[in-house]
Amino acid sequence: MSDIKKVVLAYSGGLDTSVILKWLQDTYGCEVVTFTADLGQGEELEPARAKALKLGIKAKNIFIDDLREEFVRDFVFPMFRANTVYEGEYLLGTSIARPLIAKRLIEIVNKTGADAICHGATGKGNDQVRFELGAYALKPGVKVIAPWREWDLLSREKLMNYAESHGIPIDMKHKKGGSPYSMDANLLHISFEGRHLEDPAAEAEESMWRWTVSPEKAPNKAEYIDIQYAKGDPVAINGKKMKPHEILALLNELGGKHGIGRLDLVENRYVGMKSRGCYETPGGTILLKGHRAIESITLDREVAHLKDDLMPRYASLIYNGYWWSPERQALQTLIDHTQEHVNGSVRLKLYKGNVIVVGRDSKQDSLFDPTIATFEDDAGAYDQKDAGGFIKLNALRMRIGANRDARKAPKVAAKKPAAKKAVAPKAAAKTPAKAASRKKA
Amino acid sequence: MSDIKKVVLAYSGGLDTSVILKWLQDTYGCEVVTFTADLGQGEELEPARAKALKLGIKAKNIFIDDLREEFVRDFVFPMFRANTVYEGEYLLGTSIARPLIAKRLIEIVNKTGADAICHGATGKGNDQVRFELGAYALKPGVKVIAPWREWDLLSREKLMNYAESHGIPIDMKHKKGGSPYSMDANLLHISFEGRHLEDPAAEAEESMWRWTVSPEKAPNKAEYIDIQYAKGDPVAINGKKMKPHEILALLNELGGKHGIGRLDLVENRYVGMKSRGCYETPGGTILLKGHRAIESITLDREVAHLKDDLMPRYASLIYNGYWWSPERQALQTLIDHTQEHVNGSVRLKLYKGNVIVVGRDSKQDSLFDPTIATFEDDAGAYDQKDAGGFIKLNALRMRIGANRDARKAPKVAAKKPAAKKAVAPKAAAKTPAKAASRKKA
Amino acid sequence: MSDIKKVVLAYSGGLDTSVILKWLQDTYGCEVVTFTADLGQGEELEPARAKALKLGIKAKNIFIDDLREEFVRDFVFPMFRANTVYEGEYLLGTSIARPLIAKRLIEIVNKTGADAICHGATGKGNDQVRFELGAYALKPGVKVIAPWREWDLLSREKLMNYAESHGIPIDMKHKKGGSPYSMDANLLHISFEGRHLEDPAAEAEESMWRWTVSPEKAPNKAEYIDIQYAKGDPVAINGKKMKPHEILALLNELGGKHGIGRLDLVENRYVGMKSRGCYETPGGTILLKGHRAIESITLDREVAHLKDDLMPRYASLIYNGYWWSPERQALQTLIDHTQEHVNGSVRLKLYKGNVIVVGRDSKQDSLFDPTIATFEDDAGAYDQKDAGGFIKLNALRMRIGANRDARKAPKVAAKKPAAKKAVAPKAAAKTPAKAASRKKA
Amino acid sequence: MSDIKKVVLAYSGGLDTSVILKWLQDTYGCEVVTFTADLGQGEELEPARAKALKLGIKAKNIFIDDLREEFVRDFVFPMFRANTVYEGEYLLGTSIARPLIAKRLIEIVNKTGADAICHGATGKGNDQVRFELGAYALKPGVKVIAPWREWDLLSREKLMNYAESHGIPIDMKHKKGGSPYSMDANLLHISFEGRHLEDPAAEAEESMWRWTVSPEKAPNKAEYIDIQYAKGDPVAINGKKMKPHEILALLNELGGKHGIGRLDLVENRYVGMKSRGCYETPGGTILLKGHRAIESITLDREVAHLKDDLMPRYASLIYNGYWWSPERQALQTLIDHTQEHVNGSVRLKLYKGNVIVVGRDSKQDSLFDPTIATFEDDAGAYDQKDAGGFIKLNALRMRIGANRDARKAPKVAAKKPAAKKAVAPKAAAKTPAKAASRKKA
Repeated sequence: MSDIKKVVLAYSGGLDTSVILKWLQDTYGCEVVTFTADLGQGEELEPARAKALKLGIKAKNIFIDDLREEFVRDFVFPMFRANTVYEGEYLLGTSIARPLIAKRLIEIVNKTGADAICHGATGKGNDQVRFELGAYALKPGVKVIAPWREWDLLSREKLMNYAESHGIPIDMKHKKGGSPYSMDANLLHISFEGRHLEDPAAEAEESMWRWTVSPEKAPNKAEYIDIQYAKGDPVAINGKKMKPHEILALLNELGGKHGIGRLDLVENRYVGMKSRGCYETPGGTILLKGHRAIESITLDREVAHLKDDLMPRYASLIYNGYWWSPERQALQTLIDHTQEHVNGSVRLKLYKGNVIVVGRDSKQDSLFDPTIATFEDDAGAYDQKDAGGFIKLNALRMRIGANRDARKAPKVAAKKPAAKKAVAPKAAAKTPAKAASRKKA
Repeated sequence: MSDIKKVVLAYSGGLDTSVILKWLQDTYGCEVVTFTADLGQGEELEPARAKALKLGIKAKNIFIDDLREEFVRDFVFPMFRANTVYEGEYLLGTSIARPLIAKRLIEIVNKTGADAICHGATGKGNDQVRFELGAYALKPGVKVIAPWREWDLLSREKLMNYAESHGIPIDMKHKKGGSPYSMDANLLHISFEGRHLEDPAAEAEESMWRWTVSPEKAPNKAEYIDIQYAKGDPVAINGKKMKPHEILALLNELGGKHGIGRLDLVENRYVGMKSRGCYETPGGTILLKGHRAIESITLDREVAHLKDDLMPRYASLIYNGYWWSPERQALQTLIDHTQEHVNGSVRLKLYKGNVIVVGRDSKQDSLFDPTIATFEDDAGAYDQKDAGGFIKLNALRMRIGANRDARKAPKVAAKKPAAKKAVAPKAAAKTPAKAASRKKA
Repeated sequence: MSDIKKVVLAYSGGLDTSVILKWLQDTYGCEVVTFTADLGQGEELEPARAKALKLGIKAKNIFIDDLREEFVRDFVFPMFRANTVYEGEYLLGTSIARPLIAKRLIEIVNKTGADAICHGATGKGNDQVRFELGAYALKPGVKVIAPWREWDLLSREKLMNYAESHGIPIDMKHKKGGSPYSMDANLLHISFEGRHLEDPAAEAEESMWRWTVSPEKAPNKAEYIDIQYAKGDPVAINGKKMKPHEILALLNELGGKHGIGRLDLVENRYVGMKSRGCYETPGGTILLKGHRAIESITLDREVAHLKDDLMPRYASLIYNGYWWSPERQALQTLIDHTQEHVNGSVRLKLYKGNVIVVGRDSKQDSLFDPTIATFEDDAGAYDQKDAGGFIKLNALRMRIGANRDARKAPKVAAKKPAAKKAVAPKAAAKTPAKAASRKKA
Repeated sequence: MSDIKKVVLAYSGGLDTSVILKWLQDTYGCEVVTFTADLGQGEELEPARAKALKLGIKAKNIFIDDLREEFVRDFVFPMFRANTVYEGEYLLGTSIARPLIAKRLIEIVNKTGADAICHGATGKGNDQVRFELGAYALKPGVKVIAPWREWDLLSREKLMNYAESHGIPIDMKHKKGGSPYSMDANLLHISFEGRHLEDPAAEAEESMWRWTVSPEKAPNKAEYIDIQYAKGDPVAINGKKMKPHEILALLNELGGKHGIGRLDLVENRYVGMKSRGCYETPGGTILLKGHRAIESITLDREVAHLKDDLMPRYASLIYNGYWWSPERQALQTLIDHTQEHVNGSVRLKLYKGNVIVVGRDSKQDSLFDPTIATFEDDAGAYDQKDAGGFIKLNALRMRIGANRDARKAPKVAAKKPAAKKAVAPKAAAKTPAKAASRKKA
């Protein structure tokens, strides 16, 4: 049926990917290599090794990697440099982990001489796209097996039956019906989809949330923190230097404690449907706020606006699985270039779900110049008269336009004003601007 | 000195514009018309009339208008249709009021036969630009007097001396040094600038805030509200239909009670400097959240993304004073067109500074289709196999690109990888994609 | 095999779609309705009727429509309002015809109670996408049959064999090997792909071109024409009012005569590959030039720039088949809104492949104001001193930035300048701008 | 009157800047340093030295520099990497020279210890902005003298009188009324403005053009050339390697001979007015065409589209004088990054005003893959069935949307269709897509 000899499976150790492991052996008759990553999801990985061994995987074919530092340093932080949010709200916690998994899958393909990869993402979601676009971009000839698009085990019942009849151990939780949600976790976030959430009008149950307390249960006293940034990346908390993943882990702890980073969203999937997701991104929510704050005093206005204009496009690229595309890399080049001067520190107040910026400082790189902005006498630092010319020239095209409209006005006078429009007073045809008063006859 | 006969002054009744009123009479020797607007700033306007009369303004030359409904209906709501925020955070409370004042000034110019307008905005800020661009766009031949760019009363002391020597009444608060902040208020927000805030590293004092309690002092119990939207605009709260300004006023009350809508920001002014501002926008903060939520189930993905891509530009136009420009109007046409289906209701939870979306519903206009998005068996509503082709074609250009890179790889092998880059595994030159395996020799 | 009862086939009367017609009858056993459109491709359509009858189609199931006026009025002209070109060069001649065909197919589906459409586009091209996205957008439940993605008649030989064995008449030209090119024609253009063109380094043969003479063979004497525009659409040539399709037909004639509108291009298809195409778009090339010229004197600068910024996106939407999408319609709303004042006339010189703008005029709508732009004394229409303030404020943020860089300079002095960069002279740290000279200590 | 001790004057040696030189000495009583650049404008520069000496400038204060190579290498070529045109047509010949002059002025300021620069650009044009923004960005504390904004010599007559009364030599051409045009020339182009051109409806006179013959007078025989590109820049013509400015000079010669690169335009100036300009850019026109052609086979689709989306913004930055701004540099970083693979050669045919691409080739970097794009049987390189899934998922959101519209249709049936709109057939409410057929009841 197939010319696939060896496949690298993204293996979590859970029920679904264990069934896939067995199904691959049975259906493709090929050697299976498992890859399990520690991305900070908070689960032990050694049970995955034991399970893989039990399911017949050779020891040399079991790869278990701690990717936490690489994940935060090379994926999360570069993304945050752009103040990235998808559709105005989503911090892309799942999206940004997939390209790293794709990269590592291909590295293992290259190392083991495999010819295919396999993942457990469904055919309805974004993750299949992210895994596969990444894999194809990094190794164009690789083959992809996506069981959920191939097999007929489409209900939980069929899956459980398959597991039982093939000797795959089933946890108690699955026997009881499993978690009511489809979840994904890594150092940046934990997400929830499915079941009760499939009605977008229904409030998420409090018991669903795992990483954060509710704002109601958060401490009654606020906590202040300082985040130090170097070239756009956080490098220290409260003066203490830490590695990227340590910083994110600490901020997750602080954010979780203060009820920060919950999000309840209906988002647009790349495959064309809307879906409702709930997310907890405590540390990321703090970092997003902090990064904007340090940029606010160190970034030139037009550079900041250029970044803001490009951000939604950059966010969509990541959401849609194009991390390894040349256009994402081109945008990253621009974004990274802008972070040269993004150095300094931000003071934040954490309180019951709120992340409040209370101060920002940059000794070397601040562009905030109080001698100019002051409401007091500035002793000549800024000549207010300059503003007159600034306004006059910026207005010129509109004045010429208004004169044109005034000339035409009598002819259009009969027209009814459009509904729902803030109607402006008619430009008086009799007092044209000096600027445009002597038109050619 | 001047050929100005009659000038319409934007008159608040406060010290600054009273001094300007007198200064206009003395310097230009012209008739002064005063215009005072109720934009919901929460101050009585009759004292302004009394003061104007006392300063010698004829009764027929005193215009006091209640513009609250027009303000919210024709300016605030159209702006919110675009989910507008400037520089990622600022809800444009001051910016959006200026074009209405400019419009009304010109209407009064036309009515009274005046030839100039005058305002009390400084030469360092954005408001002068907003007033004047608006005025020039609506009446290209109008003249503008901007005393702060012309006179030498640049310190508070000189201003007070001028007032005293010209018989202008001075409030006790000014005698004591006045408010420590430069403030602006209307139904959408109240803003604070200057003094203590001129150090961006210093936390704003709690006593500064006026419209909102601190999250700490907000009620310990959350409050749920329903906002009903029609064509993108809120039309009812908790099932009760209200006029636009009534809705905003009620949401201000609710938001203020729950500590919602405070913002502490360093922003980039159009005139080229950074400045620090603090804002309270309780109702607007709730509306922004609600509008995104109702759009999330009623707006097509690509339309939503188009709006997101254009929003920063639209926000800058408003911030910079281009409300009456043809490009803002062109964008508005697009934005308004997209709101046709934005109907339905949103349920929000207000709690100690948080506005939390807990549900959204649209009987007629929802694009959320649970039969497609479900994680359960969907009985064929969506064919998962389609995703394979979708991914394959989206990957094609990247696979061809990776093959190209693999062909070139040996020649660039010596190159060191660039710093600060998530390095991808090398595309294996020996296993090119089938898709590109038979290149012309 | 299928639950399809009746299918509407986009039928040209040529060999390919005749084979498809037969194949549909054999494979699906369903009733076939044929639809043949006159889009100005320059072929007689009655032979298609005869052929369809001969192949067993009922007379009432044969639809032959003259869509020329609708095509130009509702598709070509709206597209030209945006100065639309794909990838900097392609005038979208094929792309813009497909949504009209999709619309008419669905109208016939609705009229005849059919449940499916069928087209003869290959699985490698853009046209399949354009037909099907259009059909799905207009009738989401319609079924689509795309024989080239289903059958095994993938070589010309197999196709000919099928035709012969099923009694489908074969033209002499096909027996001789057929045209060396895959072609598509309508009132806007004729296109050529395939065969000799598949080598992008090889020059197209002169004999390929059909609608235009070569510039070498064009008349030695230039011809001048005037195009009159109303709301952005051409309405008269040389003072003579004509219908949209008559205008385009006349311009095709004039352009073809003068060797205008040839294009040789490698373009990026939506399905992920590059392909080489040659196009003749004589009238369209003239219209594009003319439209930009009339806009140049009637459109506000920022509106023009907004249109230019959005154009590539709008062009991609049309190229990719999203004419009937909500985002294209939203953009169209904006584009149409901007054309209100695009009235006037343009004078063009046609000569051996060149379309040269030699004059533009708009009595009512011109924004060109010679009293301001003149190099002569303008008697005060424009105050040159205003420019000083304009520049000063626009420079302010860059001066503050340069001061920042100067402060930091000693520390980065050791850094080597990046290669391939126009290196600026170092900002002298000792002469900071007055504007920023008194920084906080 | 002034605290300016030494000023560096951008000195052409012509009448205007000679008058300025004298006026500076008289008005400011300061030492004048002259700077004259060879940018390939085609004039001898030694007469400028002689004239400066005669006007009393010290020999050590006369700077005459050959900047041709730097101009083309560091300014023109980087700009062409982006396929830059302003407002769809203008190749920015003047705009791109100004930042280099600003840079050199500041270098000389630093070298001579001057405190100001002076230029001869008028207060109505873009050049003043370009000179001054560049100067301020590179040396924020520099002072700027712009005589045309300060003095009262606003007519040609006054200028001539001043020259005569101050012993400044006047050429015969000026005595006869001078050139009828305001001109600017460098290696990239020569421009014409003013006089006869101030009526946008009037055709430019044939005698105006200087660098190109008319297409009518160009050779009757076409000429073919090959341009070789490396990383996006042209490096050889017809196989012969040349320096950047040599390449542009040769292409100017070839283009001029064949009547290539004339442009007659109404453009929007940054200062707010429209102006009519005529340009000859023979070599640049060839390079623009060539660069797009080599990119067409070497650049990824999405990277090319990203560049196209950003190009108008990049062009405006250059046109408006922001070459030395941080946002232009950020964009340049992205643009340069994309040129890594833009290697290969382009074959062009030059004939009577036409630049025709006839072939493009890239041994190493081509992304054109004929095995995929072919109309012939491709032996499995591309699976046409993939296209079905690709289309289905791309259509999904539109089908869901059409179903929504169909549900609502009865209620809106009474609405009249909007004018000027390509009306789509009504989505049949009775045949919803399978995809969306089981909505929640």
